[in-house]
Amino acid sequence: MPAKDKVSEAVVRRLPVYHRYLERLEEEGVTRISSQELGARMGLTASQIRQDINCFGALGQQGYGYNVSELRRHIAEILGLGDDYGVVVIGAGNIGRAVASYTGFARLRFRVEALFDTDEARVGERIGDAEIHRLDALGAFLADHPIDIGIVATPAAAAQGAADMLVAGGVRAIWNFAPVDIAAPEGCAVQNVQLTDNLLVLTYHIHNDAPGGGA
Amino acid sequence: MPAKDKVSEAVVRRLPVYHRYLERLEEEGVTRISSQELGARMGLTASQIRQDINCFGALGQQGYGYNVSELRRHIAEILGLGDDYGVVVIGAGNIGRAVASYTGFARLRFRVEALFDTDEARVGERIGDAEIHRLDALGAFLADHPIDIGIVATPAAAAQGAADMLVAGGVRAIWNFAPVDIAAPEGCAVQNVQLTDNLLVLTYHIHNDAPGGGA
Repeated sequence: MPAKDKVSEAVVRRLPVYHRYLERLEEEGVTRISSQELGARMGLTASQIRQDINCFGALGQQGYGYNVSELRRHIAEILGLGDDYGVVVIGAGNIGRAVASYTGFARLRFRVEALFDTDEARVGERIGDAEIHRLDALGAFLADHPIDIGIVATPAAAAQGAADMLVAGGVRAIWNFAPVDIAAPEGCAVQNVQLTDNLLVLTYHIHNDAPGGGA
Repeated sequence: MPAKDKVSEAVVRRLPVYHRYLERLEEEGVTRISSQELGARMGLTASQIRQDINCFGALGQQGYGYNVSELRRHIAEILGLGDDYGVVVIGAGNIGRAVASYTGFARLRFRVEALFDTDEARVGERIGDAEIHRLDALGAFLADHPIDIGIVATPAAAAQGAADMLVAGGVRAIWNFAPVDIAAPEGCAVQNVQLTDNLLVLTYHIHNDAPGGGA
């Protein structure tokens, strides 16, 4: 079910978080939850929760809350979680290998179909079910295989070039782990993973919180 | 300079993003920027920008904007970026190795001092300057070395146990890459990296955006 109108990127980024929390509630056997309770768990206000969920068609009833499973399935559908996704990984170094064999993908329907690298010594090696190919075989591979998502795990200097090859091959989304932001034309979504942002939240707390106690 | 009051976690999470954008502005030679322009670049409203920055002491002048370098240095100080941080990595599989050798850390002052693993075959191997030790040597290592940050890169089932060992050893912050959330007592900050959240933003766009065009 495609969203009716353009939904803000901030709401889109919160959807996977909703999905995770609702999954956990299902596991705990919770069948119904109010926007207040859900907000308290997620660190959002009740009105923020209601506003977000209204963007995708209201499923809650005033004074009655949300049906946890229904809402979880509804969000899963919006996120495209019922579909299968073909994935290639560019760069078969530590990050590329780690991502290609990430166990968190197992329960989602992502198939890593191939890795690509410029290092001849790596070509032919297998990571799980996927083989490492020469980078210059990428174009031909994309022409033959329905690949939705390209993961960029190259050094910074090679990242934009890898992204351009993926775009030229018709990939619809790029997940970038190289330590530099990459750009893609409209029609190809990009998520730049900024690992250090995450780390700096920790240094903030080390620097500002009292040791062994509250802030 | 510690923050005066408790700052909301949402603001703390935006600080590294401000720092990245301001660094880029400095590189571009921009010396002064208005909250409107900074907001437009970052996808935030001008009033959100002013509110965030006010949390840490206002440096802008009405109608005059912010001094880019001053603001960048101020945020760097708040983030504790001038300090040195000792790091250990628990789990020397693909993710642990990738994180331990992540080049994005080079310009920050993080020293990966050791990795720890239960796999005897890995013990003694070096990743960059750091050696892989037996996991049961972790407590003694933490007693002897000033370690601030523990990175958990174990399988899901071992993650909380690893975190507990790090907390017992006095580590102030944990960065968790295992595909399960971990908890720590107050006084130890935790960032759970949710790699799949990021990926689901991409499946949303594949599922909802028109191919080759806008939404």
